Amino acid sequence: MSGGLRVRQPSGGARSGDGVVMKGSRDGGDMEKEQEREGLQAWKERVGQELDRVVAFWVEHSHDQEHGGFFTCLGRDGQVYDDLKYVWLQGRQVWMYCRLYRKLERFRSPELLDAAKAGGEFLLRYARVAPPGKKCAFVLTRDGRPVKVQRTIFSECFYTMAMNELWRVTGEARYQSEAVEMMEQIVYWVREDPSGLGRPRLPGAPASESMAVPMMLLNLVDQLGEADEELAGNYAELGDWCAQRILQHVQRDGQAVLENVSEDGEELSGCLGRHQNPGHALEAGWFLLRHAIRKGDPELRAHVIDKFLLLPFRSGWDPDHGGLFYFQDADGLCPTQLEWAMKLWWPHSEAMIAFLMGYSDSGDPALLHLFRRVADYTFRQFRDPEYGEWFGYLNREGKVALTIKGGPFKGCFHVPRCLAMCEEMLDALLSRLALAQSPGTQCTPAAPSPEGAK
Amino acid sequence: MSGGLRVRQPSGGARSGDGVVMKGSRDGGDMEKEQEREGLQAWKERVGQELDRVVAFWVEHSHDQEHGGFFTCLGRDGQVYDDLKYVWLQGRQVWMYCRLYRKLERFRSPELLDAAKAGGEFLLRYARVAPPGKKCAFVLTRDGRPVKVQRTIFSECFYTMAMNELWRVTGEARYQSEAVEMMEQIVYWVREDPSGLGRPRLPGAPASESMAVPMMLLNLVDQLGEADEELAGNYAELGDWCAQRILQHVQRDGQAVLENVSEDGEELSGCLGRHQNPGHALEAGWFLLRHAIRKGDPELRAHVIDKFLLLPFRSGWDPDHGGLFYFQDADGLCPTQLEWAMKLWWPHSEAMIAFLMGYSDSGDPALLHLFRRVADYTFRQFRDPEYGEWFGYLNREGKVALTIKGGPFKGCFHVPRCLAMCEEMLDALLSRLALAQSPGTQCTPAAPSPEGAK
Repeated sequence: MSGGLRVRQPSGGARSGDGVVMKGSRDGGDMEKEQEREGLQAWKERVGQELDRVVAFWVEHSHDQEHGGFFTCLGRDGQVYDDLKYVWLQGRQVWMYCRLYRKLERFRSPELLDAAKAGGEFLLRYARVAPPGKKCAFVLTRDGRPVKVQRTIFSECFYTMAMNELWRVTGEARYQSEAVEMMEQIVYWVREDPSGLGRPRLPGAPASESMAVPMMLLNLVDQLGEADEELAGNYAELGDWCAQRILQHVQRDGQAVLENVSEDGEELSGCLGRHQNPGHALEAGWFLLRHAIRKGDPELRAHVIDKFLLLPFRSGWDPDHGGLFYFQDADGLCPTQLEWAMKLWWPHSEAMIAFLMGYSDSGDPALLHLFRRVADYTFRQFRDPEYGEWFGYLNREGKVALTIKGGPFKGCFHVPRCLAMCEEMLDALLSRLALAQSPGTQCTPAAPSPEGAK
Repeated sequence: MSGGLRVRQPSGGARSGDGVVMKGSRDGGDMEKEQEREGLQAWKERVGQELDRVVAFWVEHSHDQEHGGFFTCLGRDGQVYDDLKYVWLQGRQVWMYCRLYRKLERFRSPELLDAAKAGGEFLLRYARVAPPGKKCAFVLTRDGRPVKVQRTIFSECFYTMAMNELWRVTGEARYQSEAVEMMEQIVYWVREDPSGLGRPRLPGAPASESMAVPMMLLNLVDQLGEADEELAGNYAELGDWCAQRILQHVQRDGQAVLENVSEDGEELSGCLGRHQNPGHALEAGWFLLRHAIRKGDPELRAHVIDKFLLLPFRSGWDPDHGGLFYFQDADGLCPTQLEWAMKLWWPHSEAMIAFLMGYSDSGDPALLHLFRRVADYTFRQFRDPEYGEWFGYLNREGKVALTIKGGPFKGCFHVPRCLAMCEEMLDALLSRLALAQSPGTQCTPAAPSPEGAK
């Protein structure tokens, strides 16, 4: 297992693929160490303050005091422009509030906990389309009537995350049994029989796998197994299966992460097969990195950093205007999605997590450099200094294309999750630096545990 | 019935809403008449040449000689980047080829007819998911296996258009019976029972109507009723019903065309209710205008020009960069669709048809001015002088955002339909001008018939 802050020269010098040769810091360079410490400290403060502002935005504007749950269709200044309730975003906000409450002392407020519980009750009462069936709606009216159902597993996954975190903060067993039962249903849909999702299997449709499915499941394995040996044990095989399935998306002799592959891990034909989503690959990167750290698998960690962090950045970063493209075609052809060249907030927040986690794990200064590069772009382009929260959608050149702060797919999730995780990782890095610099401790501390990195 | 070239001053002077005051031409101004004639003649030539280039592009690159039908996923230079066959686009290309063959002498070639017939046979054999059921797939593999099914009526509508035109050019009755039977099924889904489409009715989903449905049906009524008194009679009530349903989408005291309204014609709440699609309103405009001309209803014609031509242009034209926005929010809020500010080819081709038809019908020079303004922008921004056909997707500023010439939603349809219809309308206008200017004919000719305008 490599030491946390052990300096590793990036292989081949330049690993970010953008022509900038990274300098490895030199052992014993006290000034460099002090500069690094100051840099990490400055980012920790920046990230912490931003987290406070972002949470304040959602607390001020999103709570539905009448029906419980959250408004997520919020304009630039927080005004509600639609009162529909998207189940993904309800589950995510419940999860986020609980996670903040549980992990960061300053968010341990009754206001956050009460809103999370009201959101949880809203989900318990209304999310399922036809109880006791477990299929959840995609979007509900403000008062909980189903508007649309997606024939996928994602509403149910965010429902599960919400319930598990609610159990962790409240100790109420009913939340946990909801989480575990829903998880069982999801695993059944994914591994046994998807027919309950309602999507017909057509003779011309290839048996394809979207990377989103094993990613999401791996994230749930991580969530449910935290400090719970029994569940972690129950899901150990599932976690390995998810990791193996995600790794199958590395194709073309390791030169591309493809969003869709055949069920036996082959490239699919046409646009579907060539489709790439750099932000998704980076998110999968940190999911896998946590998995590899849990497993104590150094080979997997190096592979993940190479294929899911450095490769997607190299191919996905816009050399002209900066920022990560939303979609790409592995052959360099023009994607058919109209928004392919837009810059979305979440690939950038996921990249920040991934690079900082990669650096925390490997000590490779190239990864710290990439964290700073992405974070600089992200704070400069997405942050709204006037009203708080981040813009979600920029055009290719980095200009705000949609002024909304929340919508059908953007809620209280990626931004605060990124900021909270980065704050904790920066904190851990600074502690380790202080420990390493204090007299009498010359040895490097161990690599961060998944908990330390979260 | 107002005379074809009778000059009408635009009410209020400036009707395009962009601050430009339109000048009405003066009766008896021979020089103005001559300038107008020259302008129309120049556009007729430009449009005709462009049509030749566009058709040549599709003939060269899109024919699948092996399986029949058409490749529509074509890159900038015509290269096939995916061989999936989208049923909308198969039906549209069959229709387009037959229509060109039937209406414009220079396209009466065996090559076009054979390709149309091969496309028709491909549809007959493969479009339906589970024959004898009439539900058609949305997309098929190259060899005709269904990949995806949409729970809407549109694949079936384009299938019907294709079959009816095939019957018109070949005289083979089996095509016409396919068309008429499919039409019967579509009308049943729309007016009697939509459950066969497979979309569940959920308690929170408002009973809403998308303008696309009555628009599409009205277009089919026009198609099937052409020079066919019996069918025209059979569908007369349906045509009136469609027109009335489309007119219900004019809301807010006549100040906005809304894309979705309740089934009884009220504004819906939230984003769904405020959603606007200026290009769609303009397309509905020329569908309605043809209906009004068929009916000989001058009041309806004036209303349609006001509400479906001038109003969507006034609100939908980008004052900063030119071009029609793709989507808007009736309250001026930011739409949630990522592509809302992009400029798509088809709203512009539909606007060209609508304004030229409005001018042909009313003689209002403001409408000719708008035709020229849209056509100037369109030819400048969308046309590809290098490889032919038009780009489909520009960013807000008018830069090409996707270099593809065809894709899942862009095929051989909107561009050649626009060019062919404009060529015919310009031709008719020039003939009428010549007639009006020839000695001894001082009276204005009658307004164009729907056929004359088509």
